[in-house]
Amino acid sequence: MSKYQYESVKVQVFPDGVAHVELNRPKVLNAFNATLVNDIAKCFAEIGADRDIRAIVLSGSGRMFTAGLDLADNFLLQEDNGELDVARKAFIVQEHIRWFQNAVTTLEKCPIPIIVAMHNGVFGAGVDLCTAGDIRYATKDSYFCVKEVDVGLAADVGTLQRLPKVIGNSSLVRELCFTCRNMYADEAYQCGLVNKLFDTKEQLIEEALKTAKVIASKSPVAVVSTKHLLNYSRDHSVDEGLEYTAVWNSAMLMTEDIPKSVEAFVTKKPATYSKL
Amino acid sequence: MSKYQYESVKVQVFPDGVAHVELNRPKVLNAFNATLVNDIAKCFAEIGADRDIRAIVLSGSGRMFTAGLDLADNFLLQEDNGELDVARKAFIVQEHIRWFQNAVTTLEKCPIPIIVAMHNGVFGAGVDLCTAGDIRYATKDSYFCVKEVDVGLAADVGTLQRLPKVIGNSSLVRELCFTCRNMYADEAYQCGLVNKLFDTKEQLIEEALKTAKVIASKSPVAVVSTKHLLNYSRDHSVDEGLEYTAVWNSAMLMTEDIPKSVEAFVTKKPATYSKL
Amino acid sequence: MSKYQYESVKVQVFPDGVAHVELNRPKVLNAFNATLVNDIAKCFAEIGADRDIRAIVLSGSGRMFTAGLDLADNFLLQEDNGELDVARKAFIVQEHIRWFQNAVTTLEKCPIPIIVAMHNGVFGAGVDLCTAGDIRYATKDSYFCVKEVDVGLAADVGTLQRLPKVIGNSSLVRELCFTCRNMYADEAYQCGLVNKLFDTKEQLIEEALKTAKVIASKSPVAVVSTKHLLNYSRDHSVDEGLEYTAVWNSAMLMTEDIPKSVEAFVTKKPATYSKL
Amino acid sequence: MSKYQYESVKVQVFPDGVAHVELNRPKVLNAFNATLVNDIAKCFAEIGADRDIRAIVLSGSGRMFTAGLDLADNFLLQEDNGELDVARKAFIVQEHIRWFQNAVTTLEKCPIPIIVAMHNGVFGAGVDLCTAGDIRYATKDSYFCVKEVDVGLAADVGTLQRLPKVIGNSSLVRELCFTCRNMYADEAYQCGLVNKLFDTKEQLIEEALKTAKVIASKSPVAVVSTKHLLNYSRDHSVDEGLEYTAVWNSAMLMTEDIPKSVEAFVTKKPATYSKL
Amino acid sequence: MSKYQYESVKVQVFPDGVAHVELNRPKVLNAFNATLVNDIAKCFAEIGADRDIRAIVLSGSGRMFTAGLDLADNFLLQEDNGELDVARKAFIVQEHIRWFQNAVTTLEKCPIPIIVAMHNGVFGAGVDLCTAGDIRYATKDSYFCVKEVDVGLAADVGTLQRLPKVIGNSSLVRELCFTCRNMYADEAYQCGLVNKLFDTKEQLIEEALKTAKVIASKSPVAVVSTKHLLNYSRDHSVDEGLEYTAVWNSAMLMTEDIPKSVEAFVTKKPATYSKL
Amino acid sequence: MSKYQYESVKVQVFPDGVAHVELNRPKVLNAFNATLVNDIAKCFAEIGADRDIRAIVLSGSGRMFTAGLDLADNFLLQEDNGELDVARKAFIVQEHIRWFQNAVTTLEKCPIPIIVAMHNGVFGAGVDLCTAGDIRYATKDSYFCVKEVDVGLAADVGTLQRLPKVIGNSSLVRELCFTCRNMYADEAYQCGLVNKLFDTKEQLIEEALKTAKVIASKSPVAVVSTKHLLNYSRDHSVDEGLEYTAVWNSAMLMTEDIPKSVEAFVTKKPATYSKL
Repeated sequence: MSKYQYESVKVQVFPDGVAHVELNRPKVLNAFNATLVNDIAKCFAEIGADRDIRAIVLSGSGRMFTAGLDLADNFLLQEDNGELDVARKAFIVQEHIRWFQNAVTTLEKCPIPIIVAMHNGVFGAGVDLCTAGDIRYATKDSYFCVKEVDVGLAADVGTLQRLPKVIGNSSLVRELCFTCRNMYADEAYQCGLVNKLFDTKEQLIEEALKTAKVIASKSPVAVVSTKHLLNYSRDHSVDEGLEYTAVWNSAMLMTEDIPKSVEAFVTKKPATYSKL
Repeated sequence: MSKYQYESVKVQVFPDGVAHVELNRPKVLNAFNATLVNDIAKCFAEIGADRDIRAIVLSGSGRMFTAGLDLADNFLLQEDNGELDVARKAFIVQEHIRWFQNAVTTLEKCPIPIIVAMHNGVFGAGVDLCTAGDIRYATKDSYFCVKEVDVGLAADVGTLQRLPKVIGNSSLVRELCFTCRNMYADEAYQCGLVNKLFDTKEQLIEEALKTAKVIASKSPVAVVSTKHLLNYSRDHSVDEGLEYTAVWNSAMLMTEDIPKSVEAFVTKKPATYSKL
Repeated sequence: MSKYQYESVKVQVFPDGVAHVELNRPKVLNAFNATLVNDIAKCFAEIGADRDIRAIVLSGSGRMFTAGLDLADNFLLQEDNGELDVARKAFIVQEHIRWFQNAVTTLEKCPIPIIVAMHNGVFGAGVDLCTAGDIRYATKDSYFCVKEVDVGLAADVGTLQRLPKVIGNSSLVRELCFTCRNMYADEAYQCGLVNKLFDTKEQLIEEALKTAKVIASKSPVAVVSTKHLLNYSRDHSVDEGLEYTAVWNSAMLMTEDIPKSVEAFVTKKPATYSKL
Repeated sequence: MSKYQYESVKVQVFPDGVAHVELNRPKVLNAFNATLVNDIAKCFAEIGADRDIRAIVLSGSGRMFTAGLDLADNFLLQEDNGELDVARKAFIVQEHIRWFQNAVTTLEKCPIPIIVAMHNGVFGAGVDLCTAGDIRYATKDSYFCVKEVDVGLAADVGTLQRLPKVIGNSSLVRELCFTCRNMYADEAYQCGLVNKLFDTKEQLIEEALKTAKVIASKSPVAVVSTKHLLNYSRDHSVDEGLEYTAVWNSAMLMTEDIPKSVEAFVTKKPATYSKL
Repeated sequence: MSKYQYESVKVQVFPDGVAHVELNRPKVLNAFNATLVNDIAKCFAEIGADRDIRAIVLSGSGRMFTAGLDLADNFLLQEDNGELDVARKAFIVQEHIRWFQNAVTTLEKCPIPIIVAMHNGVFGAGVDLCTAGDIRYATKDSYFCVKEVDVGLAADVGTLQRLPKVIGNSSLVRELCFTCRNMYADEAYQCGLVNKLFDTKEQLIEEALKTAKVIASKSPVAVVSTKHLLNYSRDHSVDEGLEYTAVWNSAMLMTEDIPKSVEAFVTKKPATYSKL
Repeated sequence: MSKYQYESVKVQVFPDGVAHVELNRPKVLNAFNATLVNDIAKCFAEIGADRDIRAIVLSGSGRMFTAGLDLADNFLLQEDNGELDVARKAFIVQEHIRWFQNAVTTLEKCPIPIIVAMHNGVFGAGVDLCTAGDIRYATKDSYFCVKEVDVGLAADVGTLQRLPKVIGNSSLVRELCFTCRNMYADEAYQCGLVNKLFDTKEQLIEEALKTAKVIASKSPVAVVSTKHLLNYSRDHSVDEGLEYTAVWNSAMLMTEDIPKSVEAFVTKKPATYSKL
């Protein structure tokens, strides 16, 4: 049994350094309630700190990846705090949003690569979540819906920040966000939201795990540095990214992984890298 | 008759909260002269402040969307100020550029979504203009030309800033800007400059208005916030975008539009939202 | 004979203002050793300062564009400085990285447009190099590989900064960087890394030179300004890009190239522009 | 009579290119109501565009510089909009804040230098206002009070942004803002909020006008450029400031004011510069 | 007894909303060991979340404020990890620095104002710590020493970032950092590091508590917003600070604290504000 | 004889790792001509790369520190290029400004600390120069003058960028820049431009060398890192500065200089550090 146990998230750890994380509220289509948000935050913080794990696959159990917010969970705080001063309510609302944002951002802050493998519906918070991962694969029956405007609010846990930086198509992003229309697998593939499509969920998971295994076999110094530097460079000018990279690698280039890698290349035998 | 009357821009307002704005100098192929620039600035400022309007379609009347700068209008200030000190001329030129830039940026600053519906030629300033809108649709006979280099100058009212952030293809952007070659509808669709193509101008306008109507039916709190946050997030890091969004939504999540939207969802009856 | 002579880079200058630069270590598949890095830096600095040259094509001689780092060249400093204090080593490593980064960035800082024409393999540092150019063309047999992770390090001379800003597809970028898999011509075309594909290397070079010739025939004030402003705007917000452009063009719009261009347009005779 | 007439602001224009602007609601101690805010915005926009004016002095008529917000004017919108949806109210409040911010920022955007000459009390919005000017002089009986916290809000029209960048003393800024205590002239001088103190209001105005006259006698190209570049550089890194300055001055150094200035220096006769 | 109990930090909570925090390792001159770092982080996170506390005084028990790093605590990780790969060590060192940085930054992230009251020696990490607070008071026998260079490293938990933004004197900052000389109370007062000096430690604490009490009596909406906005504005341009402030206050200006404050002003009776 | 020989700059290297650089055109009051600009650039690049040198004093030979631009040297390009197209001239002017800016910035980029020791007049470019150094000392007869506006231009080689970040007094900076008045030693000391004053030039040089010697005796890893991180942090937010510092020190904390320093502290014997 996995040492990682959460109420609404299931974790399986494979001996090759790959972890498989599943959103696990299938009865309610993996809808986001407070428990799921907290479990995501805890799970990615904990397995992100586990030096034995080197790549992660995230998928959803049951019928679809996720139906988005669980409206039954009074997630939007509407009823609460009725009598409170507006400014004091605003502080509470703000704290609530930051709590949810931070949970989603755990995927980005997780030092190792995360492959998000999605099937069927990906609604609302599911889009926020998947864009905080690194690589996105999906089934051919998948579809994506930025649902927040239909609930009366602007998406506030990542979609408006990350989606436009993930796909290079501003016109499409805005159409999706303003109209809440579904985007189906083909369009998601063409615009680059996902970069591989599969016929079935089984194939999806299998291929995602295969890619994860490839990543897990590489130098962890190289892989973790690459994710860190890609995140940094997304949010900085090219010059600042280069400067930061030079400083970062001034330590990392002294690693034993480089001669090990070169030797592996020369001898054609796979290298074995120590964990971080 | 519409209450919005301009010399070179035509505005039609529909009861469902949609406005249709047309560049209206068909005899000169909607070329930009000073009047058109001023009318665009005034028009989008005024209908952007009209709380009864919730989505806008922008198109061009006559043969093409626009032929770009009206060279007959001495737009480039070449003859003027012959005897002036170079520095004093430079102040005048700079002011002139800012005036034109601000007019184009009115589309971006307009709080409500703008769908730019283009047919046939879109030259020079037309590319600057359309990239300042939100969603771009076009006809299959449309073509786009970043014409400025052919006139002896670098584009200075938006194309060099917005086009690379609108489509995710730096190599193509630079080829278009350096060579002034035409990009035809298919390539414009593939690279994401436009995200829907239509056979005829009639279909184009019809579908643009349909999308606008969908947007106009949504919560204005949600829609206006979404446009504002997308603009902000384009120009900031993901972390800064999230921080700003949390503060923004600390007030907005207290809106009545959320319970109205949830009720509409439950009862399957469309919600009616107050205007902003 | 060309006045530009380098050990590992070959330069041909054409009378129409086009220069053709070739990586020229065909026996080792144009692998990067210290000489090649230095020659690239010198070559692009020198021809970038030559006002007679207005557009550049960069290609690789021999079997492929480049095999990436020349591992035989002890490029990664592994053996050196064995007894040194770690901090002192770190300063040396950092200086080494900056030296290599600066060589690659010479392409970006070169004021005139660079078309990178690639055939067959483009490995490791080749991807860093080509993304620092402006326009990318390739043959149908080309393939691209972000090889650094396989050598035990994160890419540190540009790929992690520039590739995500060059193509609009974050999921693909990360897959390529983490897995070191090959990306073949079709996918490179679809994602926008290259924006034209050709059957043979001959066609590739011919068409690249043709595009270069078109660019070289335009106003150098307009072309150089356009490259400069595109680089600036990539790394700044839209508002900052517009502000900078207004100041830049406050001098440039006084150029004689504008009336020359307008006259050429009216008379249908090509304009002749002075060099910068 | 001056051609600049406003209800709550008095403007005197001197033949030497100096304008003297006075806050002119002496009966209510120059408290800020909507009229005063609008008049400030209009006045500085209009005289800032008047090329005959080259330096401005701003002072307050009557007993003190200003008592801050006019609480009688329902400035804080508390009673209004009682029944409105909270989000809709928030849009109105935000617009109100921006209107007030923009009025204060008019001083910063005004291209020519503004010397703020203050006597006696400078409360609340007065601190916001004076920190948007360029040079601050005061009488020995002056005192300053960041009053906003005492009214139940965080200062939102400039003090929290500009005061810490105007004086180099973070501990003092925070003490003043959190406690709302008075800071008297000596401390204001020592911390650099003002950089000259005078015994009487007459001396204050006289010396402020004298400094203004000196500024008005200099090259307007040089003075206007200097203010613009100081504002830009405050908000950017040193490298970005230098880069922007090089571009700005690429036009400005061609001015006739430089040979005129050099000649004046050589001949010891004052130069006469054309207006901008 | 206070509900806040830590091994190396002592907390006293007063009924007027003021907390007094003391570094409490007097036998070793409040030197920083891992326990103290962890206790600082926990303490300021916990009392920062306690809505009954509205202002904090931080001082040191015993002979001096703090002697800086406890070198006996093997804080610098020198012996550890001897056999590890350099890159893997670098990850550990980096994590260690971030842990220490985050503890210090807890003071800045703490929503309520912190007055740091210092006596006698303030060495190394003590300077990092005090510059993360809001207001600094000291005794006349105090002296400050940026000690890190003398230990063979650049200060890495805040001094190099915050000291230059806290005092406006770059020449002095660099002299202090490069030479590790002592700066005595008078110079610390003159340069603005502290903004009040007292004869004895008793007076120091008494006056710090008095100021804290004044702050605690104000509207918590106003005070917490002011600290938040000052922190934000320090790190952004004036325009960005104003924009953020307008959004922040769009909710906060709806507070009941404003009418309460105005009424208190009119009736001359102190207002009572609800806690946040 | 020193191995560093330049026409207009004199360099003396002391055995304790200190270099003394003198502006050496005493007959023309160390006025800046092209030779001096080039010599400054070369000198600080070369001694900055000399690992035997660990601290630098910069002073002026003869009557004063510097009289600023040498107007006899046609520095401002006024006569040149009379017939050229304005845009082409602008490129030349821009290049000229960047050349001069880069020379001044050499002081900032020089990895080791520079103490600027000034006597008597410091005009124009002298202020640009001294603010690019680290520590400023002066004689009591020194005075400073931002002279550029009097020559008809805005300062463009550093004063407008660095002076406001060097002293914390915006009002004073603007008064100095707009009026070109002299600021005498006392005011320069009070505002923090210089942080020590001396009676004679001999004392000035002696004390500057003494401070330089102190700095040269410290760990070069610590000192060079401190200068680098102070420069970085000036231009970034506190959070970015901390992040960068953590990465930088992840290598540097592994230095032998730390145990050496600790041992020196314990044994009370001075440490000897290897050069970088």
